[in-house]
Amino acid sequence: MTRAAIPAPVLPSAGVLTPLGLDESRITGGLWAQKQVVNAAATLEHIRARLESEGWLPNFDLAAAGALPEGRRGREFADSEVYKWLEALAWEIGRGGSDELEQTFRAAVARVAAAQEADGYLNTMFGREGQRPRWSDLEWGHELYCAGHLLQAAVARARTRPGSDDGLLEVAIRVADLVVREFGPGAREAICGHAEIELGLAELGRVTGDRRYTEQAALFVERHGKHTLRDIEHGRAYYQDDVAVREAEALRGHAVRANYLAASAVDVAIDTGDADLLAALERQWSRTIARRTYITGGQGARHSDEAFGEDWELPSDRAYSETCAGIASLMFAWRLLLATGEARYADLIERILYNVLATSVSDEGTAFFYSNPLQQRVEGAMPDPGETVGRASTSLRAPWFSVSCCPTNIGRTIASLGAYLATTTAHGVQVHQYAAGEIRTASGIALTVDTAYPARGRIVVRIDEPGDFEIALRVPGWAHGATLDGAPVSPGYARVRRRWNEGDEVVLELPVAPRVSLPDPRIDAVRGSVAIERGPEVWALESVDLGTDVAGAVLVPGSVRAEGEGVVADFLVREDDAAAWPYAAEQPPAGEQRTSALVPYRRWGNRGPATMRVFLPLAT
Amino acid sequence: MTRAAIPAPVLPSAGVLTPLGLDESRITGGLWAQKQVVNAAATLEHIRARLESEGWLPNFDLAAAGALPEGRRGREFADSEVYKWLEALAWEIGRGGSDELEQTFRAAVARVAAAQEADGYLNTMFGREGQRPRWSDLEWGHELYCAGHLLQAAVARARTRPGSDDGLLEVAIRVADLVVREFGPGAREAICGHAEIELGLAELGRVTGDRRYTEQAALFVERHGKHTLRDIEHGRAYYQDDVAVREAEALRGHAVRANYLAASAVDVAIDTGDADLLAALERQWSRTIARRTYITGGQGARHSDEAFGEDWELPSDRAYSETCAGIASLMFAWRLLLATGEARYADLIERILYNVLATSVSDEGTAFFYSNPLQQRVEGAMPDPGETVGRASTSLRAPWFSVSCCPTNIGRTIASLGAYLATTTAHGVQVHQYAAGEIRTASGIALTVDTAYPARGRIVVRIDEPGDFEIALRVPGWAHGATLDGAPVSPGYARVRRRWNEGDEVVLELPVAPRVSLPDPRIDAVRGSVAIERGPEVWALESVDLGTDVAGAVLVPGSVRAEGEGVVADFLVREDDAAAWPYAAEQPPAGEQRTSALVPYRRWGNRGPATMRVFLPLAT
Repeated sequence: MTRAAIPAPVLPSAGVLTPLGLDESRITGGLWAQKQVVNAAATLEHIRARLESEGWLPNFDLAAAGALPEGRRGREFADSEVYKWLEALAWEIGRGGSDELEQTFRAAVARVAAAQEADGYLNTMFGREGQRPRWSDLEWGHELYCAGHLLQAAVARARTRPGSDDGLLEVAIRVADLVVREFGPGAREAICGHAEIELGLAELGRVTGDRRYTEQAALFVERHGKHTLRDIEHGRAYYQDDVAVREAEALRGHAVRANYLAASAVDVAIDTGDADLLAALERQWSRTIARRTYITGGQGARHSDEAFGEDWELPSDRAYSETCAGIASLMFAWRLLLATGEARYADLIERILYNVLATSVSDEGTAFFYSNPLQQRVEGAMPDPGETVGRASTSLRAPWFSVSCCPTNIGRTIASLGAYLATTTAHGVQVHQYAAGEIRTASGIALTVDTAYPARGRIVVRIDEPGDFEIALRVPGWAHGATLDGAPVSPGYARVRRRWNEGDEVVLELPVAPRVSLPDPRIDAVRGSVAIERGPEVWALESVDLGTDVAGAVLVPGSVRAEGEGVVADFLVREDDAAAWPYAAEQPPAGEQRTSALVPYRRWGNRGPATMRVFLPLAT
Repeated sequence: MTRAAIPAPVLPSAGVLTPLGLDESRITGGLWAQKQVVNAAATLEHIRARLESEGWLPNFDLAAAGALPEGRRGREFADSEVYKWLEALAWEIGRGGSDELEQTFRAAVARVAAAQEADGYLNTMFGREGQRPRWSDLEWGHELYCAGHLLQAAVARARTRPGSDDGLLEVAIRVADLVVREFGPGAREAICGHAEIELGLAELGRVTGDRRYTEQAALFVERHGKHTLRDIEHGRAYYQDDVAVREAEALRGHAVRANYLAASAVDVAIDTGDADLLAALERQWSRTIARRTYITGGQGARHSDEAFGEDWELPSDRAYSETCAGIASLMFAWRLLLATGEARYADLIERILYNVLATSVSDEGTAFFYSNPLQQRVEGAMPDPGETVGRASTSLRAPWFSVSCCPTNIGRTIASLGAYLATTTAHGVQVHQYAAGEIRTASGIALTVDTAYPARGRIVVRIDEPGDFEIALRVPGWAHGATLDGAPVSPGYARVRRRWNEGDEVVLELPVAPRVSLPDPRIDAVRGSVAIERGPEVWALESVDLGTDVAGAVLVPGSVRAEGEGVVADFLVREDDAAAWPYAAEQPPAGEQRTSALVPYRRWGNRGPATMRVFLPLAT
């Protein structure tokens, strides 16, 4: 088996679990199949059209024509959106995308390639007359960041169409070689203000077998914390240049940067056999999950620097919880899952998938939440289809953003989602995420997963080819009372090994009754409140269901109950517009009782402007 | 009586109450006398030294020498700090400052005046070759903002040294005339991104009797909400250009801008007899106080744009509560108090004085909090005396900031504080704030206030000159159980009118036992928590007293008690570093009980790095 040819985003050189390629793990039904259909049919084209109309793809044409900088449009990182879109196209084509997609991909690659300079440099923002010099603004210039996304796109293409003559891999290799010349051992000792080049280099090293890229990724990772970047008002923690990666206690600073860096550091730890670094990253992950992560799996509590807050600083209303941070956190967790085989990483991935990723993108695939707050205090406007909104806007899902990193990140993640569902070991197969689908491993294991999860908790795994292997099914951390073939199983992996015949079935039952979750008392922002969850989904109260603003509603304890596959609860609602000093010796009286349905958080905002809250104050 | 000659910051043309000048109301003892001594002896010199060393005062020398832009230092608004310091000097000199201060003032004015251009333009950042053109960046350029502070400085000087030959008033008049030519009726229809020019023009109109300035202030106020400024990612609410002033429902956007604009709008409403505008401002104030104000009186919940949050969005940890926003809010409330005579405005001013202003500045007068959070999660560092820190830093009080608006704002406010304590009407005198001091009104009322407030609640007002007049003493909103000469009085103004003899006394007793205040249940961030107050002061729990981080401490209900003039309470303290998913079906057990002293919030951080919280979670 040539590892480089497996069509999967992450192919570590070692680790407890081995990834499957998109050809080995397919989603055939349910929410995620639907999301993949919409992603292919609508999202990728939506992105293409905006990349053209915003001028971000035409920037490359201007570069090739020597017409920059005059007509350049977009921020420093505009190139990277083209690359993330190319990566999404590569995965989608690898999943069986149309000839039309292939032509779109090739045409775009040609435009990008035409902009590459003789020495391999490729960036539309720097280096020309009238532009700032190359590498002159490592703090904010995003040059290496853009290069990293180019490398990831090329890796996706190399793994899904090995040997293709489109030329993207060659473009990427020339960029990577330039990066090694400029920033390699003995050259300029610097890092990029936004981690990402590390991810691209690590995976390009795996694709090409060229250790220089792996070593360059390792160099960049190790250089964090050496204060090669300027101090700024946000502090050097913003770009993780405050403390060495292996010495940090938790993720901090800009949440996307932090997770990209941590994910790449796992790659480096694995490929260089650095057990100390891997252990440090596992510790940081634990602390980050325990104290700096929303119940949705979202990360990043602060708007001002799109950053993690301190421990326990997790406001619902101003949760930034950027979609891209969720995806970056998924990438970090996936690498730790492959490295260790521990279920807690897959637990987080499930939380992110259902409550961040699926929340961000609209049913139509053409509008997105950039940030994913757990409380909406004012009814946000519904943007027009052609609108570009601010990233921290309170609007509903929007078609595009002034900083539009999230749509392309969603595009590439959903296109490659099949690869995150299951893995193999020498003993057998592990199913981490449940969706109706088929697993056909190169090693000969063939399974069909039949389920209406998460609406229902029954997951039937049918064996399609006889064999002697172990099936490991993840029992989520929340699934107390789960059974496997009728026998109680605990959170973690439920494992069955036997000689299987075709048509054999294993049945996992996960309890999906609504449950009430209490936050740690140190999370001040949601003290005295509870969240309602059902299966992997966090649920929310929306004003559309309550019939009035959710601000004055408190939950009647013990009133949460299932209604079919839905959830309802009773609330005391106070409506009071008196304007008085709000700190007093006595509390105002409780309001009138009413019953309201809740909605899965990922479905909020689908019925027009509304106020919403995930954490529900308990009536006392 | 020539109104222009009263040495007071605000002299409305009408209103229920008439301000007293600094010569009519003096503070002689207690906290505020001490603050004034330190302000005069240390703060003003500290500011002078930094204005020189940061280059902000030398910028004017460069301008005069034609040497700009090369050597210019500081941000767009650096000039304004020089002007706010000049204003502070003017008040301090008016209060009886030294000859040395007078020389310092005159020397600085000469340097400023030398930089004024032939047509009256005066700004070191714009208009020269190599600089951006004048008025080319109204969103962020702060040109009119700087001009407004210059006018306020000149007003302070004109009122404290009428007829002085220093030339500042003439410089200001030439600037104001230029502003009227450039932005007056029929000229450029625009506003400044940071309200302030309106305040300067309104008061300059009062000093000079020139209605053009008043009308220009009114024009600027009315132009807000007409979208003459660009839309930005923060939205036009950031600079109050979203909605017309008279149509807004609450203060919103940048909290300093919002309060400066609202304060100036009161000036305009009074001087133009616009009852509709005044009523709108009173409504906005009510809503802002009821839903967007911290228990400290601080305003501005958001770091990202230094802005008000939505209703009920009042996080303790990320409270921005900028010192300057507190001062700006005091300015707004003072104008409404003069206009209406309602005690609630004086209540807010008291809250701001004790819990924002007195919190920000150190005992030594040379270090400041820029933001005033109600919870400190991590121990902030103690800056070095020469250090400049970021404004959103978690450091302890710092000597200077990259944006250093707060020190000069404190300087001018403390120097003029005497003017905010009492007022007169045709019937008599109103005492709004209590400090040991003397009132000697131009109308012949002479009182001595004897008190150790706020440590003790006894306030003795002694009559020093016989007369027939009313004495109105404010009973704060929190002071349930107050007595006047032994008889119960309710919050509001307790009024006694009689023919007084010299030596007569009125004794007001305010209850200063510790009290427990509950937040409105809609303030999500502090649900299940209470604040402890004593007199006008909010108190806080500091780790230095608790003996451990305050994050794990919950208050034992009913345990808050006085200990002398201090406050102690019992807490259950949990120390637990286990790293687990923090949302679960059950809460962790409570911790061990210990007793701790509390400190007035304004005194927190005085014993080195500490964690701190104002709102204390209640044990359940």
